[in-house]
Amino acid sequence: MAKKTAVAKSKKKPAPSTKKRKRKSGTTGERIEALAQSVVTMAEKQIDPHVDIPLRALSNVHFNEKTRYIEMGDKFQQRNFFNYGQAKRFMQTMLVASKCKDLSNEEKTASIRQIYYMAKHTIKGTKEKTFDEQSECDPIIEDLEVAVESLREELHVFASSRGSLIGQLTFVDSGDTIDATRMGSGGYSIPSIVEPDVIQFKKCNAKFVLHLEKDTVWRRFVEDRFWEKHRCILTHGGGQPPRGVRRLLHRMHNELKLPVYVLLDNDPWGYYIYSVIKQGSINLAFESSRMAIPDAKYVGVSAFDYERFDLSDDVKIEVDANDVKRSKQIMAYPWFKNKRPWAREIKRLLANGFKMEVEAMCSKSLSFVTEEYLPYKLKHKNEWLD
Amino acid sequence: MAKKTAVAKSKKKPAPSTKKRKRKSGTTGERIEALAQSVVTMAEKQIDPHVDIPLRALSNVHFNEKTRYIEMGDKFQQRNFFNYGQAKRFMQTMLVASKCKDLSNEEKTASIRQIYYMAKHTIKGTKEKTFDEQSECDPIIEDLEVAVESLREELHVFASSRGSLIGQLTFVDSGDTIDATRMGSGGYSIPSIVEPDVIQFKKCNAKFVLHLEKDTVWRRFVEDRFWEKHRCILTHGGGQPPRGVRRLLHRMHNELKLPVYVLLDNDPWGYYIYSVIKQGSINLAFESSRMAIPDAKYVGVSAFDYERFDLSDDVKIEVDANDVKRSKQIMAYPWFKNKRPWAREIKRLLANGFKMEVEAMCSKSLSFVTEEYLPYKLKHKNEWLD
Repeated sequence: MAKKTAVAKSKKKPAPSTKKRKRKSGTTGERIEALAQSVVTMAEKQIDPHVDIPLRALSNVHFNEKTRYIEMGDKFQQRNFFNYGQAKRFMQTMLVASKCKDLSNEEKTASIRQIYYMAKHTIKGTKEKTFDEQSECDPIIEDLEVAVESLREELHVFASSRGSLIGQLTFVDSGDTIDATRMGSGGYSIPSIVEPDVIQFKKCNAKFVLHLEKDTVWRRFVEDRFWEKHRCILTHGGGQPPRGVRRLLHRMHNELKLPVYVLLDNDPWGYYIYSVIKQGSINLAFESSRMAIPDAKYVGVSAFDYERFDLSDDVKIEVDANDVKRSKQIMAYPWFKNKRPWAREIKRLLANGFKMEVEAMCSKSLSFVTEEYLPYKLKHKNEWLD
Repeated sequence: MAKKTAVAKSKKKPAPSTKKRKRKSGTTGERIEALAQSVVTMAEKQIDPHVDIPLRALSNVHFNEKTRYIEMGDKFQQRNFFNYGQAKRFMQTMLVASKCKDLSNEEKTASIRQIYYMAKHTIKGTKEKTFDEQSECDPIIEDLEVAVESLREELHVFASSRGSLIGQLTFVDSGDTIDATRMGSGGYSIPSIVEPDVIQFKKCNAKFVLHLEKDTVWRRFVEDRFWEKHRCILTHGGGQPPRGVRRLLHRMHNELKLPVYVLLDNDPWGYYIYSVIKQGSINLAFESSRMAIPDAKYVGVSAFDYERFDLSDDVKIEVDANDVKRSKQIMAYPWFKNKRPWAREIKRLLANGFKMEVEAMCSKSLSFVTEEYLPYKLKHKNEWLD
């Protein structure tokens, strides 16, 4: 009975705590093993086996003014085996963990869809499936990420890849040396997993990284050999950059000490993309420390650029009700709220009543953006948004 | 008056004709100039200026049994300047043509969105814009493609890029030599424009090209170094392959004499992707001769693979009403209709009542698809679909 009480007690713990979470030690494989071992130990001691899953919810997320990114708090949920409502998810968690351990042992990687198919089976003697839908499996992978404090990539699970890179960087990817100044017009496809065991930086002549929203704009910069003239690295993420692109930007920023400049469309979506690159996202708050780049700078497009560059009416795209709503939400984000330039920027967008795309600069001339707009921006740091 | 009659006459011409269309001569730049010159000449002769735009509609598309791809017929529309309903589109056509000529002169390329911004302006002294929406501009670009018989890429206009390549091929892209056996895990991003002035093939050790539907499956093949063991080139197109990927497949097939094998999901969407790679699409029928690969082979996944490989129920995804409808449409395509194996295949899918993804092979084991499934398929050519 004493044991049961112990379990019941641990259910209440912890109330939101201010103590710092300690990073778990060991490799991801070792941490999965430790998780499994703790379950075995509980079973042997005849305690109801459980795993603690840090809570991934808005209520457990906050903006840390010191680190300047979104962080996860200390609340967690206990997932018990002998609990009617939790048993299935408990078993699913164990199953996914064992598949990730297999991947790690085999030195292979899999997509979330592949994990789902690997883990899905019919339980012997029943018609019960371990998973009915991928949508059941995906959150379990996220649970496991936070439970063992490993990036998805460290669990050997990859997301869809999107995004390319060209510029003043030489690196090794899986044993192959890639000179990103010699990648033609196509460029290097940024893979989903860019951890140091896959990608090692070798030589960097760049002074900064310029991250662009879309491949079509990126191509303009590549064709005009902007990376050569301005000694930089050009990346894009096909819209909201996927994990691999964010993680690579993070690594270039921290390991190569490169400033990261971001050029996005002047609309709430552009602001939001910047926000995610800089502060992290609520969904992936547990990964902020290895994804977010609090020092990233928004170099454009700004709502003030319309006057600044004497643009014509042809660049205007009317804002709609949804844009207004999103702009106000973004303005209220704790990390934008206290910054006057951001308040001015967003208010100006709303006062303008129109949005502008990077591509709209073509209405001046095709290479205006690479030959005049961005060189001007690079000189006038006071006009950047931080 | 004689002149007017001439115009009126030419409006009726041609009734669907069986005569072969002659390919226009000269470079794309020269052809745009010829188009412009003909308009000037008509104006000088006081004839109502017009351009002939081949008709891009189902009624002007057919499957050529000899070439084995979808072709455009000879019907065209005349677009006149002195016609209330056509004047605007006539002027838009001239405008887009002049922008494409500029691109060609400057040796630059632009996206369709950039073209739109370049061509959009307010006509002096009015509030009339040359274009209000990009959706007005895109079809004009397609009109121009058919009118001057140039691929969009030859007009220096690019689409969004998607898709990657790794394998036994060395090529030059914009002056940089790319050895696709040494591209790490990320691979080479296939750009939108892959014409011979951009990409030149240098050395090829591949015996075939294997085209995969999705990047996640492609990654499985890359990680297992399938391209090395089986001496091939691996490509994917992120779903329905974009123009750049299709054109590169076409070039590798025709210039390097490589067979193209296609591995897609077993569902109507997979069949359709194959159909487009092989026969071309109705929308882009005018480009079939430089895009379609009539000898491409569908190596899988086949509806018969469920039994063939003793797969479990876990791979099944139920077909819905839309799948049934699409399957029947595809079965009725002239290029599938007369092929018994295709009729059998599609009927079997419907009889199965379920679809299967390539990734479902992971339910056997992660590398089953690269180590057993595809090696088996490569040996059993009789099981391919053609």
